[in-house]
Amino acid sequence: MAGLIKPLNNVYDQFRRLPGVGSKSALRLAYHIIDMPEAEVRRLAETLLQAKQDIRFCRECFNLTDREVCDICGDEKRDHSTICVVEQPQDALAMERSHGYTGVYHILHGCLSPLDGIGPDDIRIRELLFRLEKGGVKEIILATNSNVEGEATAAYLAQLLRPHQVIVSRIARGLPMGGDLEYADEVTLAKALENRTRL
Amino acid sequence: MAGLIKPLNNVYDQFRRLPGVGSKSALRLAYHIIDMPEAEVRRLAETLLQAKQDIRFCRECFNLTDREVCDICGDEKRDHSTICVVEQPQDALAMERSHGYTGVYHILHGCLSPLDGIGPDDIRIRELLFRLEKGGVKEIILATNSNVEGEATAAYLAQLLRPHQVIVSRIARGLPMGGDLEYADEVTLAKALENRTRL
Repeated sequence: MAGLIKPLNNVYDQFRRLPGVGSKSALRLAYHIIDMPEAEVRRLAETLLQAKQDIRFCRECFNLTDREVCDICGDEKRDHSTICVVEQPQDALAMERSHGYTGVYHILHGCLSPLDGIGPDDIRIRELLFRLEKGGVKEIILATNSNVEGEATAAYLAQLLRPHQVIVSRIARGLPMGGDLEYADEVTLAKALENRTRL
Repeated sequence: MAGLIKPLNNVYDQFRRLPGVGSKSALRLAYHIIDMPEAEVRRLAETLLQAKQDIRFCRECFNLTDREVCDICGDEKRDHSTICVVEQPQDALAMERSHGYTGVYHILHGCLSPLDGIGPDDIRIRELLFRLEKGGVKEIILATNSNVEGEATAAYLAQLLRPHQVIVSRIARGLPMGGDLEYADEVTLAKALENRTRL
Protein backbone atom coordinates (compact mmCIF):
# COMPACT_ATOMS: atom_id res chain seq x y z
CA MET A 1 0.00 0.00 0.00
CA ALA A 2 1.33 3.42 -1.01
CA GLY A 3 2.69 5.62 1.76
CA LEU A 4 3.42 2.83 4.22
CA ILE A 5 6.95 2.36 5.50
CA LYS A 6 8.44 -0.97 4.42
CA PRO A 7 8.20 -3.09 7.61
CA LEU A 8 4.59 -2.00 8.09
CA ASN A 9 3.80 -2.64 4.45
CA ASN A 10 5.24 -6.15 4.79
CA VAL A 11 2.85 -6.86 7.66
CA TYR A 12 0.00 -5.37 5.64
CA ASP A 13 0.86 -7.63 2.68
CA GLN A 14 0.95 -10.73 4.89
CA PHE A 15 -2.44 -9.99 6.43
CA ARG A 16 -3.90 -9.08 3.04
CA ARG A 17 -3.23 -12.65 1.84
CA LEU A 18 -5.34 -14.23 4.59
CA PRO A 19 -8.91 -15.19 3.70
CA GLY A 20 -11.60 -12.64 4.48
CA VAL A 21 -9.10 -9.89 5.29
CA GLY A 22 -9.66 -6.88 3.05
CA SER A 23 -7.49 -3.85 2.52
CA LYS A 24 -8.92 -1.84 5.46
CA SER A 25 -8.80 -4.77 7.88
CA ALA A 26 -5.22 -5.59 6.90
CA LEU A 27 -4.16 -1.99 7.53
CA ARG A 28 -5.94 -1.93 10.87
CA LEU A 29 -4.32 -5.22 11.90
CA ALA A 30 -0.88 -4.02 10.79
CA TYR A 31 -1.15 -0.89 12.95
CA HIS A 32 -2.43 -3.01 15.80
CA ILE A 33 0.65 -5.25 15.58
CA ILE A 34 2.90 -2.20 15.88
CA ASP A 35 0.91 -1.07 18.92
CA MET A 36 1.17 -4.46 20.65
CA PRO A 37 3.96 -5.12 23.18
CA GLU A 38 6.81 -7.06 21.55
CA ALA A 39 6.26 -10.03 23.87
CA GLU A 40 2.70 -10.39 22.62
CA VAL A 41 3.72 -10.22 18.97
CA ARG A 42 6.32 -12.88 19.73
CA ARG A 43 3.65 -15.05 21.36
CA LEU A 44 1.37 -14.64 18.33
CA ALA A 45 4.20 -15.52 15.93
CA GLU A 46 5.30 -18.53 17.96
CA THR A 47 1.75 -19.82 18.39
CA LEU A 48 1.25 -19.88 14.62
CA LEU A 49 4.51 -21.75 14.01
CA GLN A 50 3.94 -24.13 16.90
CA ALA A 51 0.48 -25.08 15.68
CA LYS A 52 1.78 -25.63 12.17
CA GLN A 53 4.51 -27.90 13.55
CA ASP A 54 2.39 -29.81 16.07
CA ILE A 55 -0.70 -30.50 14.04
CA ARG A 56 -0.87 -33.55 11.82
CA PHE A 57 -3.61 -35.76 10.41
CA CYS A 58 -5.16 -38.55 12.47
CA ARG A 59 -4.02 -41.80 10.83
CA GLU A 60 -7.59 -43.16 11.04
CA CYS A 61 -9.92 -40.36 9.99
CA PHE A 62 -7.51 -37.64 8.77
CA ASN A 63 -8.94 -35.06 11.12
CA LEU A 64 -6.46 -32.58 12.61
CA THR A 65 -4.75 -33.80 15.76
CA ASP A 66 -1.59 -33.29 17.78
CA ARG A 67 -1.24 -37.04 18.40
CA GLU A 68 -1.08 -40.21 16.34
CA VAL A 69 -4.83 -40.77 16.57
CA CYS A 70 -7.39 -38.02 17.20
CA ASP A 71 -9.51 -37.79 20.36
CA ILE A 72 -12.62 -39.01 18.58
CA CYS A 73 -11.04 -42.06 16.95
CA GLY A 74 -9.28 -42.84 20.21
CA ASP A 75 -12.52 -42.67 22.21
CA GLU A 76 -13.76 -46.17 23.09
CA LYS A 77 -17.24 -44.83 23.82
CA ARG A 78 -17.81 -43.59 20.27
CA ASP A 79 -19.57 -45.85 17.80
CA HIS A 80 -16.78 -46.99 15.48
CA SER A 81 -19.20 -48.80 13.17
CA THR A 82 -20.65 -45.51 11.88
CA ILE A 83 -18.48 -43.19 9.79
CA CYS A 84 -19.60 -39.68 8.92
CA VAL A 85 -17.79 -38.47 5.79
CA VAL A 86 -17.18 -34.71 5.64
CA GLU A 87 -15.13 -32.48 3.38
CA GLN A 88 -13.06 -30.54 5.91
CA PRO A 89 -11.98 -30.70 9.57
CA GLN A 90 -14.17 -27.66 10.31
CA ASP A 91 -17.20 -29.65 9.10
CA ALA A 92 -16.48 -32.35 11.70
CA LEU A 93 -16.16 -29.59 14.30
CA ALA A 94 -19.56 -28.19 13.30
CA MET A 95 -21.05 -31.69 13.52
CA GLU A 96 -19.54 -32.20 16.98
CA ARG A 97 -21.05 -28.94 18.16
CA SER A 98 -24.52 -30.19 17.26
CA HIS A 99 -24.04 -32.89 19.94
CA GLY A 100 -26.19 -35.18 17.83
CA TYR A 101 -23.55 -37.59 16.57
CA THR A 102 -21.77 -40.37 18.44
CA GLY A 103 -19.97 -42.15 15.58
CA VAL A 104 -16.58 -41.39 14.07
CA TYR A 105 -15.57 -39.28 11.07
CA HIS A 106 -13.68 -39.46 7.84
CA ILE A 107 -12.27 -36.22 6.47
CA LEU A 108 -11.93 -36.15 2.69
CA HIS A 109 -9.91 -32.91 2.68
CA GLY A 110 -11.77 -31.60 -0.31
CA CYS A 111 -14.51 -32.58 -2.70
CA LEU A 112 -14.63 -33.64 -6.32
CA SER A 113 -14.33 -30.60 -8.52
CA PRO A 114 -13.45 -31.34 -12.16
CA LEU A 115 -13.29 -27.62 -12.94
CA ASP A 116 -10.48 -27.23 -10.40
CA GLY A 117 -8.89 -30.48 -11.54
CA ILE A 118 -9.70 -32.29 -8.30
CA GLY A 119 -10.52 -35.94 -8.97
CA PRO A 120 -11.13 -39.00 -6.75
CA ASP A 121 -7.37 -39.54 -6.26
CA ASP A 122 -6.85 -36.03 -4.89
CA ILE A 123 -9.08 -36.48 -1.85
CA ARG A 124 -9.00 -39.19 0.83
CA ILE A 125 -11.39 -41.63 -0.85
CA ARG A 126 -8.89 -44.49 -1.08
CA GLU A 127 -8.33 -44.23 2.67
CA LEU A 128 -12.07 -44.49 3.26
CA LEU A 129 -12.25 -47.70 1.23
CA PHE A 130 -9.28 -49.02 3.19
CA ARG A 131 -11.16 -48.41 6.46
CA LEU A 132 -14.15 -50.30 5.03
CA GLU A 133 -11.98 -53.25 4.07
CA LYS A 134 -10.66 -53.52 7.62
CA GLY A 135 -14.27 -54.41 8.53
CA GLY A 136 -16.64 -53.52 11.36
CA VAL A 137 -18.27 -50.59 9.56
CA LYS A 138 -22.07 -50.74 9.38
CA GLU A 139 -23.06 -47.30 8.09
CA ILE A 140 -21.46 -44.50 6.13
CA ILE A 141 -23.18 -41.12 6.42
CA LEU A 142 -22.31 -38.81 3.55
CA ALA A 143 -22.21 -35.31 5.02
CA THR A 144 -20.49 -33.37 2.25
CA ASN A 145 -21.76 -29.86 1.63
CA SER A 146 -25.07 -29.31 -0.10
CA ASN A 147 -23.59 -27.44 -3.09
CA VAL A 148 -22.84 -28.74 -6.59
CA GLU A 149 -19.43 -30.21 -5.73
CA GLY A 150 -20.60 -31.66 -2.40
CA GLU A 151 -23.63 -33.32 -3.98
CA ALA A 152 -21.50 -34.71 -6.81
CA THR A 153 -18.99 -36.09 -4.30
CA ALA A 154 -21.78 -37.72 -2.31
CA ALA A 155 -23.28 -39.23 -5.47
CA TYR A 156 -19.86 -40.55 -6.55
CA LEU A 157 -19.20 -42.08 -3.12
CA ALA A 158 -22.69 -43.63 -2.97
CA GLN A 159 -22.02 -45.41 -6.25
CA LEU A 160 -18.50 -46.43 -5.21
CA LEU A 161 -19.76 -47.88 -1.92
CA ARG A 162 -22.70 -49.79 -3.39
CA PRO A 163 -20.80 -53.13 -3.80
CA HIS A 164 -19.74 -53.01 -0.14
CA GLN A 165 -21.78 -54.54 2.67
CA VAL A 166 -22.59 -51.22 4.30
CA ILE A 167 -25.54 -48.86 4.68
CA VAL A 168 -24.88 -45.59 2.86
CA SER A 169 -26.95 -42.55 3.85
CA ARG A 170 -26.97 -38.85 3.04
CA ILE A 171 -27.75 -36.11 5.58
CA ALA A 172 -31.16 -34.50 5.05
CA ARG A 173 -31.48 -31.37 2.98
CA GLY A 174 -34.48 -29.17 3.76
CA LEU A 175 -35.66 -25.96 5.39
CA PRO A 176 -33.11 -24.81 8.00
CA MET A 177 -34.49 -24.63 11.55
CA GLY A 178 -35.92 -21.18 12.15
CA GLY A 179 -36.09 -20.62 8.41
CA ASP A 180 -39.04 -18.96 6.74
CA LEU A 181 -40.63 -20.67 3.73
CA GLU A 182 -41.00 -17.22 2.24
CA TYR A 183 -37.24 -16.68 2.06
CA ALA A 184 -36.13 -20.21 1.21
CA ASP A 185 -34.80 -20.79 -2.31
CA GLU A 186 -36.76 -23.07 -4.61
CA VAL A 187 -34.20 -25.91 -4.64
CA THR A 188 -34.23 -26.11 -0.84
CA LEU A 189 -38.03 -26.10 -0.82
CA ALA A 190 -38.17 -28.83 -3.47
CA LYS A 191 -35.77 -30.94 -1.38
CA ALA A 192 -37.75 -30.27 1.80
CA LEU A 193 -40.92 -31.44 0.05
CA GLU A 194 -39.27 -34.46 -1.54
CA ASN A 195 -37.77 -35.62 1.74
CA ARG A 196 -40.86 -34.98 3.87
CA THR A 197 -41.32 -37.40 6.77
CA ARG A 198 -44.54 -39.00 8.01
CA LEU A 199 -45.77 -37.79 11.39
CA MET B 1 -13.36 -22.69 21.55
CA ALA B 2 -14.83 -26.04 22.61
CA GLY B 3 -13.89 -29.04 20.50
CA LEU B 4 -10.69 -27.58 19.06
CA ILE B 5 -7.40 -29.38 19.65
CA LYS B 6 -5.00 -27.32 21.73
CA PRO B 7 -2.51 -25.99 19.14
CA LEU B 8 -5.39 -24.95 16.89
CA ASN B 9 -7.24 -23.41 19.80
CA ASN B 10 -4.12 -21.40 20.68
CA VAL B 11 -4.06 -19.94 17.17
CA TYR B 12 -7.80 -19.25 17.41
CA ASP B 13 -7.30 -17.42 20.72
CA GLN B 14 -4.48 -15.31 19.29
CA PHE B 15 -6.53 -14.26 16.26
CA ARG B 16 -9.61 -13.66 18.42
CA ARG B 17 -7.72 -10.97 20.31
CA LEU B 18 -7.01 -8.92 17.19
CA PRO B 19 -9.34 -6.00 16.47
CA GLY B 20 -12.27 -6.69 14.15
CA VAL B 21 -11.71 -10.46 14.17
CA GLY B 22 -14.81 -12.24 15.43
CA SER B 23 -15.27 -15.84 16.43
CA LYS B 24 -16.01 -17.14 12.92
CA SER B 25 -13.18 -15.20 11.28
CA ALA B 26 -10.70 -16.37 13.92
CA LEU B 27 -11.69 -19.99 13.32
CA ARG B 28 -11.42 -19.57 9.57
CA LEU B 29 -7.99 -17.97 9.90
CA ALA B 30 -6.80 -20.69 12.29
CA TYR B 31 -7.75 -23.43 9.83
CA HIS B 32 -6.14 -21.43 7.05
CA ILE B 33 -2.85 -21.27 8.99
CA ILE B 34 -2.88 -25.07 9.32
CA ASP B 35 -3.49 -25.35 5.56
CA MET B 36 -0.62 -23.00 4.68
CA PRO B 37 2.84 -24.42 3.86
CA GLU B 38 5.14 -24.15 6.87
CA ALA B 39 7.50 -21.79 5.04
CA GLU B 40 4.67 -19.32 4.54
CA VAL B 41 3.60 -19.47 8.17
CA ARG B 42 7.23 -18.85 9.10
CA ARG B 43 7.35 -15.85 6.78
CA LEU B 44 4.17 -14.45 8.31
CA ALA B 45 5.49 -14.94 11.84
CA GLU B 46 8.87 -13.40 11.05
CA THR B 47 7.35 -10.44 9.24
CA LEU B 48 5.30 -9.54 12.31
CA LEU B 49 8.30 -9.75 14.63
CA GLN B 50 10.59 -7.92 12.22
CA ALA B 51 8.15 -5.03 11.85
CA LYS B 52 7.75 -4.80 15.60
CA GLN B 53 11.53 -4.69 16.02
CA ASP B 54 12.30 -2.29 13.16
CA ILE B 55 9.61 0.29 13.65
CA ARG B 56 10.14 3.16 16.04
CA PHE B 57 8.82 6.71 16.44
CA CYS B 58 10.25 9.59 14.42
CA ARG B 59 12.07 11.79 16.93
CA GLU B 60 10.47 14.90 15.39
CA CYS B 61 6.82 14.07 14.76
CA PHE B 62 6.42 10.66 16.45
CA ASN B 63 5.08 9.06 13.29
CA LEU B 64 6.13 5.46 12.67
CA THR B 65 9.45 5.06 10.90
CA ASP B 66 12.27 2.59 10.46
CA ARG B 67 14.88 5.36 10.70
CA GLU B 68 15.79 8.10 13.15
CA VAL B 69 13.62 10.67 11.35
CA CYS B 70 10.62 9.79 9.18
CA ASP B 71 10.53 10.41 5.41
CA ILE B 72 8.22 13.39 5.78
CA CYS B 73 10.24 15.19 8.46
CA GLY B 74 13.41 14.41 6.54
CA ASP B 75 12.02 15.85 3.29
CA GLU B 76 13.51 19.31 2.59
CA LYS B 77 10.71 20.10 0.14
CA ARG B 78 7.97 19.85 2.76
CA ASP B 79 6.85 23.02 4.53
CA HIS B 80 8.32 22.64 8.02
CA SER B 81 6.57 25.79 9.27
CA THR B 82 3.15 24.10 9.18
CA ILE B 83 2.38 21.27 11.58
CA CYS B 84 -0.74 19.14 11.22
CA VAL B 85 -1.63 17.56 14.57
CA VAL B 86 -3.34 14.16 14.32
CA GLU B 87 -4.23 11.46 16.82
CA GLN B 88 -2.68 8.39 15.19
CA PRO B 89 -0.14 7.41 12.50
CA GLN B 90 -3.00 6.10 10.35
CA ASP B 91 -4.55 9.59 10.38
CA ALA B 92 -1.35 11.04 8.90
CA LEU B 93 -1.44 8.27 6.28
CA ALA B 94 -5.03 9.19 5.38
CA MET B 95 -4.02 12.84 5.14
CA GLU B 96 -1.07 11.96 2.89
CA ARG B 97 -3.37 10.00 0.61
CA SER B 98 -5.49 13.10 0.03
CA HIS B 99 -2.37 14.69 -1.59
CA GLY B 100 -3.59 18.04 -0.32
CA TYR B 101 -1.03 18.69 2.38
CA THR B 102 2.61 19.71 2.04
CA GLY B 103 3.50 20.51 5.65
CA VAL B 104 4.71 18.16 8.38
CA TYR B 105 2.83 16.26 11.08
CA HIS B 106 2.73 15.76 14.81
CA ILE B 107 1.27 12.49 16.06
CA LEU B 108 -0.31 12.74 19.51
CA HIS B 109 -0.71 8.96 19.86
CA GLY B 110 -4.13 9.32 21.40
CA CYS B 111 -6.60 11.98 22.45
CA LEU B 112 -7.78 13.38 25.75
CA SER B 113 -10.28 11.01 27.26
CA PRO B 114 -10.99 11.59 30.97
CA LEU B 115 -13.30 8.55 31.07
CA ASP B 116 -10.38 6.33 30.06
CA GLY B 117 -8.02 8.20 32.34
CA ILE B 118 -6.07 9.74 29.47
CA GLY B 119 -4.93 13.27 30.31
CA PRO B 120 -2.60 15.81 28.65
CA ASP B 121 0.51 14.07 30.01
CA ASP B 122 -0.45 10.75 28.42
CA ILE B 123 -0.30 11.97 24.82
CA ARG B 124 2.51 13.78 22.99
CA ILE B 125 1.44 17.35 23.82
CA ARG B 126 4.64 18.29 25.65
CA GLU B 127 6.62 17.26 22.58
CA LEU B 128 4.46 19.53 20.39
CA LEU B 129 5.18 22.52 22.67
CA PHE B 130 8.85 21.65 22.53
CA ARG B 131 8.76 21.79 18.72
CA LEU B 132 7.08 25.21 18.93
CA GLU B 133 9.76 26.52 21.28
CA LYS B 134 12.47 25.54 18.83
CA GLY B 135 10.92 28.17 16.55
CA GLY B 136 10.12 28.41 12.85
CA VAL B 137 6.52 27.20 13.17
CA LYS B 138 3.89 29.51 11.64
CA GLU B 139 0.72 27.43 11.72
CA ILE B 140 -0.64 24.50 13.67
CA ILE B 141 -3.57 22.69 12.04
CA LEU B 142 -5.59 20.67 14.54
CA ALA B 143 -6.76 17.56 12.68
CA THR B 144 -7.96 15.37 15.54
CA ASN B 145 -11.08 13.32 14.90
CA SER B 146 -14.46 14.96 14.83
CA ASN B 147 -15.87 12.98 17.78
CA VAL B 148 -16.28 14.07 21.41
CA GLU B 149 -12.71 13.23 22.45
CA GLY B 150 -11.16 14.63 19.27
CA GLU B 151 -13.06 17.90 19.57
CA ALA B 152 -12.15 18.18 23.25
CA THR B 153 -8.48 17.56 22.45
CA ALA B 154 -8.58 20.22 19.73
CA ALA B 155 -10.25 22.71 22.09
CA TYR B 156 -7.67 21.99 24.79
CA LEU B 157 -4.77 22.42 22.36
CA ALA B 158 -6.24 25.63 20.93
CA GLN B 159 -6.33 27.14 24.41
CA LEU B 160 -2.86 25.87 25.27
CA LEU B 161 -1.38 27.31 22.08
CA ARG B 162 -3.04 30.72 22.35
CA PRO B 163 -0.09 32.41 24.16
CA HIS B 164 2.29 31.26 21.42
CA GLN B 165 3.05 33.31 18.31
CA VAL B 166 1.41 30.85 15.96
CA ILE B 167 -1.72 30.54 13.86
CA VAL B 168 -3.95 27.75 15.19
CA SER B 169 -6.59 26.31 12.85
CA ARG B 170 -9.02 23.41 12.88
CA ILE B 171 -9.88 21.28 9.84
CA ALA B 172 -13.37 21.98 8.47
CA ARG B 173 -16.30 19.89 9.57
CA GLY B 174 -19.23 19.71 7.15
CA LEU B 175 -21.03 17.62 4.60
CA PRO B 176 -18.71 14.88 3.24
CA MET B 177 -18.08 15.07 -0.52
CA GLY B 178 -20.69 12.99 -2.30
CA GLY B 179 -22.87 13.14 0.81
CA ASP B 180 -26.64 13.69 0.63
CA LEU B 181 -28.18 16.36 2.85
CA GLU B 182 -31.04 13.95 3.39
CA TYR B 183 -28.85 11.40 5.12
CA ALA B 184 -26.51 13.74 7.00
CA ASP B 185 -26.94 13.90 10.77
CA GLU B 186 -28.07 17.16 12.31
CA VAL B 187 -24.77 18.02 14.02
CA THR B 188 -22.90 17.71 10.71
CA LEU B 189 -25.50 19.88 8.98
CA ALA B 190 -25.34 22.51 11.73
CA LYS B 191 -21.53 22.57 11.38
CA ALA B 192 -21.77 22.76 7.59
CA LEU B 193 -24.11 25.74 7.87
CA GLU B 194 -22.06 27.48 10.55
CA ASN B 195 -18.82 27.12 8.57
CA ARG B 196 -20.33 28.09 5.20
CA THR B 197 -17.93 29.94 2.90
CA ARG B 198 -18.68 32.93 0.66
CA LEU B 199 -18.60 32.25 -3.06
